[in-house]
Amino acid sequence: MSEFPSIPIGVLRYRAGLSTAESDHVAVECPIALEYNGISHAVMLASPSDVADFALGFSLSEGIIARPQDLFDLEVRPAEKGLVVALTIATQQFERLKTRRRSLTGRTGCGICGLEALEQLAMLPAPVSGKQTFSRMAIVKAVAGLIQQQPLQVQTGATHAAAWLNRSGDLRIVREDVGRHNALDKLIGAVVKSGLSFSEGALLMTSRASVEIVQKAATMGIGHIAAVSAPTSMAVGLARDCGVTLVGFLRGQDHVVYAHEVDLAQ
Amino acid sequence: MSEFPSIPIGVLRYRAGLSTAESDHVAVECPIALEYNGISHAVMLASPSDVADFALGFSLSEGIIARPQDLFDLEVRPAEKGLVVALTIATQQFERLKTRRRSLTGRTGCGICGLEALEQLAMLPAPVSGKQTFSRMAIVKAVAGLIQQQPLQVQTGATHAAAWLNRSGDLRIVREDVGRHNALDKLIGAVVKSGLSFSEGALLMTSRASVEIVQKAATMGIGHIAAVSAPTSMAVGLARDCGVTLVGFLRGQDHVVYAHEVDLAQ
Repeated sequence: MSEFPSIPIGVLRYRAGLSTAESDHVAVECPIALEYNGISHAVMLASPSDVADFALGFSLSEGIIARPQDLFDLEVRPAEKGLVVALTIATQQFERLKTRRRSLTGRTGCGICGLEALEQLAMLPAPVSGKQTFSRMAIVKAVAGLIQQQPLQVQTGATHAAAWLNRSGDLRIVREDVGRHNALDKLIGAVVKSGLSFSEGALLMTSRASVEIVQKAATMGIGHIAAVSAPTSMAVGLARDCGVTLVGFLRGQDHVVYAHEVDLAQ
Repeated sequence: MSEFPSIPIGVLRYRAGLSTAESDHVAVECPIALEYNGISHAVMLASPSDVADFALGFSLSEGIIARPQDLFDLEVRPAEKGLVVALTIATQQFERLKTRRRSLTGRTGCGICGLEALEQLAMLPAPVSGKQTFSRMAIVKAVAGLIQQQPLQVQTGATHAAAWLNRSGDLRIVREDVGRHNALDKLIGAVVKSGLSFSEGALLMTSRASVEIVQKAATMGIGHIAAVSAPTSMAVGLARDCGVTLVGFLRGQDHVVYAHEVDLAQ
């Protein structure tokens, strides 16, 4: 298992009818196992970069810990088939996690697919409060500059990015991953560590906006989400219910507002 | 929960600096619960179309049943929050599933994210045998015609397609879903029901080629995979190990061959 987020491999490229043997970079998807207080919780396939950000962000966005201070220790170590992240969390949070796991067998990282019964899909986060108006033009500006901060995507063409913008549309933090949920968890971890506030900015995703993206963002109190691609029905519904502004289909200066238009300014 | 794969919603569209209130179609992601012999197995978010194909394909590609004849009955019924598919499978397969579930707590639809420990990632399918050479130009032809058979993508911009091509590059069956793995499972179910052979054709995905796509395809004996977007490292590794031809980055007549170039002809 590579510890790098991309590796070179030999390929045969066909271009304009001619074939050439080339070296190409492909994105590495690495199994990353999260252990809380010695108990294995989940394995996700993720890009092996910013792993500590990922583990912190996942722990927060999945509600395993409520505050960064509840994460006492985090150690990343290589295993035969991937990486293991050993997290030590507060006893109270760990007891709650164990209780939740007993009632939610199969609960996993992507938020939904591990749920074993429809009844377990009760997942409305608290409405995002104290949200300020955000500028549409700040989003447009940020999208234009994003690809320059996606080196893994430029190299492999196989990764998503999650970015945090300030109110001027400056890209403050960008994280990449083969999975869009992982990219968001990495960003959440990095924003928390940087001391930036989720109530002062906007989330930009290069992907579609799925319900899990809105779920994780709303859990963190993020009030504005912009996605390069389309949202899904449950994403729109959750954004409307939680007071999250949701913008999609970003194409140059064009875009579509799916929820809480009132919180956007020029 | 809508029983349709897309629903109209009111949005505000910004185009060339002007905003208009419009009705837009968004893709519905519907929780679909699979129950085997009365026991809940997994819930996935999927487009609520071709649900019977999906359940059959998932059962086969995940190795829950080995042959379509082992699925005795399949009933789709609405539930408060989504759909339930009640499957009745052969006793022997069900006993095996129960045993596997005891040892693989958390095993879920997307193939990986539910696994709870790295040790459970031993998943090499048998090498694909009896594979015939497939034509590169048949793939190029199929890609050019695919969007015309993606009505949900045209309407919503939020879905992937999986397609089955014959040796002339004709699109024999196309299935769409908000999730690429679901689209593939729907296609697998539909191909099985149609009586077509997995050893006589190729799989075309509009998405990236992730390791789960190659895993499901190789399990079914599919020998040729073409993906519009990039593959990941584990997808390339698995394709090379299993004898699957893997083509990516389809752009007009250009493309990149990542595995088993020798099985492609002009």
